[in-house]
Amino acid sequence: MFTKQIDENTYLKLLEPHHARQLFAVTDSSRKSLRTWLPWVDFIETPGQSEEFIHGAMKQYGENNGFQAGIWFKEDLAGVIGLHKIDWPNRSTSVGYWLGEAFTGRGLMTKACREVVDHCFIELELQRVEIRAASENRKSSAVPKRLGFEYEGCLRGSEKLYDNYVDHYVYGMLRPEWVNKG
Amino acid sequence: MFTKQIDENTYLKLLEPHHARQLFAVTDSSRKSLRTWLPWVDFIETPGQSEEFIHGAMKQYGENNGFQAGIWFKEDLAGVIGLHKIDWPNRSTSVGYWLGEAFTGRGLMTKACREVVDHCFIELELQRVEIRAASENRKSSAVPKRLGFEYEGCLRGSEKLYDNYVDHYVYGMLRPEWVNKG
Amino acid sequence: MFTKQIDENTYLKLLEPHHARQLFAVTDSSRKSLRTWLPWVDFIETPGQSEEFIHGAMKQYGENNGFQAGIWFKEDLAGVIGLHKIDWPNRSTSVGYWLGEAFTGRGLMTKACREVVDHCFIELELQRVEIRAASENRKSSAVPKRLGFEYEGCLRGSEKLYDNYVDHYVYGMLRPEWVNKG
Amino acid sequence: MFTKQIDENTYLKLLEPHHARQLFAVTDSSRKSLRTWLPWVDFIETPGQSEEFIHGAMKQYGENNGFQAGIWFKEDLAGVIGLHKIDWPNRSTSVGYWLGEAFTGRGLMTKACREVVDHCFIELELQRVEIRAASENRKSSAVPKRLGFEYEGCLRGSEKLYDNYVDHYVYGMLRPEWVNKG
Amino acid sequence: MFTKQIDENTYLKLLEPHHARQLFAVTDSSRKSLRTWLPWVDFIETPGQSEEFIHGAMKQYGENNGFQAGIWFKEDLAGVIGLHKIDWPNRSTSVGYWLGEAFTGRGLMTKACREVVDHCFIELELQRVEIRAASENRKSSAVPKRLGFEYEGCLRGSEKLYDNYVDHYVYGMLRPEWVNKG
Amino acid sequence: MFTKQIDENTYLKLLEPHHARQLFAVTDSSRKSLRTWLPWVDFIETPGQSEEFIHGAMKQYGENNGFQAGIWFKEDLAGVIGLHKIDWPNRSTSVGYWLGEAFTGRGLMTKACREVVDHCFIELELQRVEIRAASENRKSSAVPKRLGFEYEGCLRGSEKLYDNYVDHYVYGMLRPEWVNKG
Repeated sequence: MFTKQIDENTYLKLLEPHHARQLFAVTDSSRKSLRTWLPWVDFIETPGQSEEFIHGAMKQYGENNGFQAGIWFKEDLAGVIGLHKIDWPNRSTSVGYWLGEAFTGRGLMTKACREVVDHCFIELELQRVEIRAASENRKSSAVPKRLGFEYEGCLRGSEKLYDNYVDHYVYGMLRPEWVNKG
Repeated sequence: MFTKQIDENTYLKLLEPHHARQLFAVTDSSRKSLRTWLPWVDFIETPGQSEEFIHGAMKQYGENNGFQAGIWFKEDLAGVIGLHKIDWPNRSTSVGYWLGEAFTGRGLMTKACREVVDHCFIELELQRVEIRAASENRKSSAVPKRLGFEYEGCLRGSEKLYDNYVDHYVYGMLRPEWVNKG
Repeated sequence: MFTKQIDENTYLKLLEPHHARQLFAVTDSSRKSLRTWLPWVDFIETPGQSEEFIHGAMKQYGENNGFQAGIWFKEDLAGVIGLHKIDWPNRSTSVGYWLGEAFTGRGLMTKACREVVDHCFIELELQRVEIRAASENRKSSAVPKRLGFEYEGCLRGSEKLYDNYVDHYVYGMLRPEWVNKG
Repeated sequence: MFTKQIDENTYLKLLEPHHARQLFAVTDSSRKSLRTWLPWVDFIETPGQSEEFIHGAMKQYGENNGFQAGIWFKEDLAGVIGLHKIDWPNRSTSVGYWLGEAFTGRGLMTKACREVVDHCFIELELQRVEIRAASENRKSSAVPKRLGFEYEGCLRGSEKLYDNYVDHYVYGMLRPEWVNKG
Repeated sequence: MFTKQIDENTYLKLLEPHHARQLFAVTDSSRKSLRTWLPWVDFIETPGQSEEFIHGAMKQYGENNGFQAGIWFKEDLAGVIGLHKIDWPNRSTSVGYWLGEAFTGRGLMTKACREVVDHCFIELELQRVEIRAASENRKSSAVPKRLGFEYEGCLRGSEKLYDNYVDHYVYGMLRPEWVNKG
Repeated sequence: MFTKQIDENTYLKLLEPHHARQLFAVTDSSRKSLRTWLPWVDFIETPGQSEEFIHGAMKQYGENNGFQAGIWFKEDLAGVIGLHKIDWPNRSTSVGYWLGEAFTGRGLMTKACREVVDHCFIELELQRVEIRAASENRKSSAVPKRLGFEYEGCLRGSEKLYDNYVDHYVYGMLRPEWVNKG
């Protein structure tokens, strides 16, 4: 029921169990491309496992520790954007996202991410928002660059992707920077 | 961030901790009228207690057991509407609501309630939605009546209101009735 | 060990794990008639599942949220009576019960229920006791009628019974009524 | 509601929150004599603390880990008897008990304890029941002796009583012994 | 990483998950002799089950309720020694231990046990340490005897070993005795 | 009891509740210098609060999620070193540490940290160890530099220190680098 309209065709919605089939469908249809950068893809083999992810995401939200929202394009669930967790004492968080293959290349994620970052700084009054991307994942890095995040470093070997470890580029944005930019 | 637009001036938003001050303000300013029908009003003496209520509501949502949304009118938090819990095995729920004094008499609640009921039947695919009102609370009973709910009975002595027990009128709506009405 | 004697041949006992085989036996032997009104019958396929029910019932009692007692007739476990939960803030509860086929028609349940209701009003000092019966389950409705409960309404579509939804007749009794009747 | 009749004037009842005032009364009236052997007496200063003990005892029962029963003599709560915990893998438990000053010297505890031990061996089918008494507490040791328990040893310094450590006499009974005695 | 050196070749180490394979190996290689006195041996059929035991042991330590340490001899994990739990109100605990067949007869356990008992009295400032051994397990009883524990009694039928119940000899040591001995 | 010897005078020990007084003493005596870089110093006002920290640290260890060890120099508790948490799916962790004023300038921390990092790579078989230091905390940054960690970036505004946000320098070490160095 609860949505964040982004433009005429695009909106975000908190993921709920009744979205499980749609979520599984977009995961399953882009399985090959998604698994290049997402370690969990091989573990989602049924709609029930997508529903389990959603229950976990709702629990995360219920603990005031961030959210996972679906990105809808027209009538389709196109991907997911969310906060990995919220470090309240340091007022800091980290944004993660992915899109199904059929929905890339239209600027959807940059628009969605702008809204999420804005929510973090304006409504949640956080101080720092971080975006991490695998160093070779150019599409993913493009999002924080377009939004004016600063490149802060490369954390080597930070994530296990099936049999390899990949480096993470870290992009950071601080509250005063975002607000002044506005 | 996540809202349900109801009309140009009115929308619902899931309550989050950063709404605690606004929630306390509307509670505090209508304390006298609210306590006529709401047993918890006297226990909300500080914004911190409104925030505790919100944390409880987020946890309820996180357990997939219903939600509590603020009703915003223009820039003000006017009241609250939510589901007391969701009885998933029987696909049934119950709606509760209240408005600050300054926001009554404009049809806000009927509009908000229509959206919530619609969400229950269409998105959550529940079978039954119930609304209970204290038997002498005419304003509250007016909402399910306007929405076409059926009066189903009077459960005597169902709620303790400070030192008295009040009777509950029960109004019910079933999924096929709502869908056919549409 | 702990019992409530009802008459020479009949008594209630809190269900404990060592009753699991007897509980399964009475369930299994009346499977066909019980499933007409009880949604859980098809899920009890082994004595271990009856034991799981008993562990749940003990936990409910341990949380001061009502009990489930076996009804013994002579040496046999004849059925179950219990409180679905206790709504302490409103001092209200709801009684549920069932009997194995071989034990119906002797007034056992009316006697058992009278004791349970009496316990609710006199020892627990509750204000309201409710009994709900599916609208077409005449035997079940007969119990609150014989005990002087008032018919308060019909909550439509309240319970899912396998593939159907059934209506609930609600019968209510208030503490002053019960005490004055005495 | 649930009782175990012991003789015409005496019965056991699972302790429930509505017994808190009576439990506090018997504790408070025998405070001086009870604290000689019971380490918790000084921590019970209000009826609310007796109620907390009862909530803990109900939770213990709810986990199938033993019970705490009040001993009633005529209309008075005279004392408490219970199982400290149940060691299910080894099918073993330990009985504890105390009486208010006004109720000692009448054989109440021996009768109560016989019923509890019988329940352990016959209904719960335990293999071993143990009773421990501080070595200088002759009244307490008299109970297992009268019931035919065997003295098995003295565990030195086993219990802290305010500022001292006391030795425990251990008395044991095995299932075959009890059953054959019967 | 954290060890307690006992002599040139022998040391204790808190068991951690990366020890699971070694722990399973010593269990598996002495399966036949160990199951004479240890009821859990038949339940350890894979290294994963040894790892589960270690996770349980770490949780026990995390709750400040005792520890389980591996006994290393040169490069081999030879056995386990630990505290069953700590009764903090009474400042009392109980020590348990076992060795793989290949490591018995060299005095390893007496040395290991001396360190553990010393830790209980000196660092943890406990008042009583207890060692129990099945009455016919002479090797096990030899350890507390060599360390000067006092034989305090025989608790009959205290432990279920597969299909039998065995008696426990109890040996006790008090803090002042240990300290004065030193 | 369990220690990691570092050199003749220095060793690490898992923090346990009986260290609370020593831990409070070193915190309290260096309060002014410690609070420059440690956000929690002002919240430790009594030995009981140091003990609460230790209980939390033990729970962390019990969940296999890292440890907190005291650094002992001769007979004194000089400071603390530990792992903030362990990211097992990515086999990565982060080391944190502090020393009381009286113990700085002797190379204690570099030696302690070398052992901890070694444990992470050799025993826990982690892939990445990270050390973060506030950008202006030169003493803290000196430790990873001396141990050959690579500077990977500056995460701006990452930590709230009382009223300010400070930047974090991140230093990283990977398993193959550490092992080859050896």
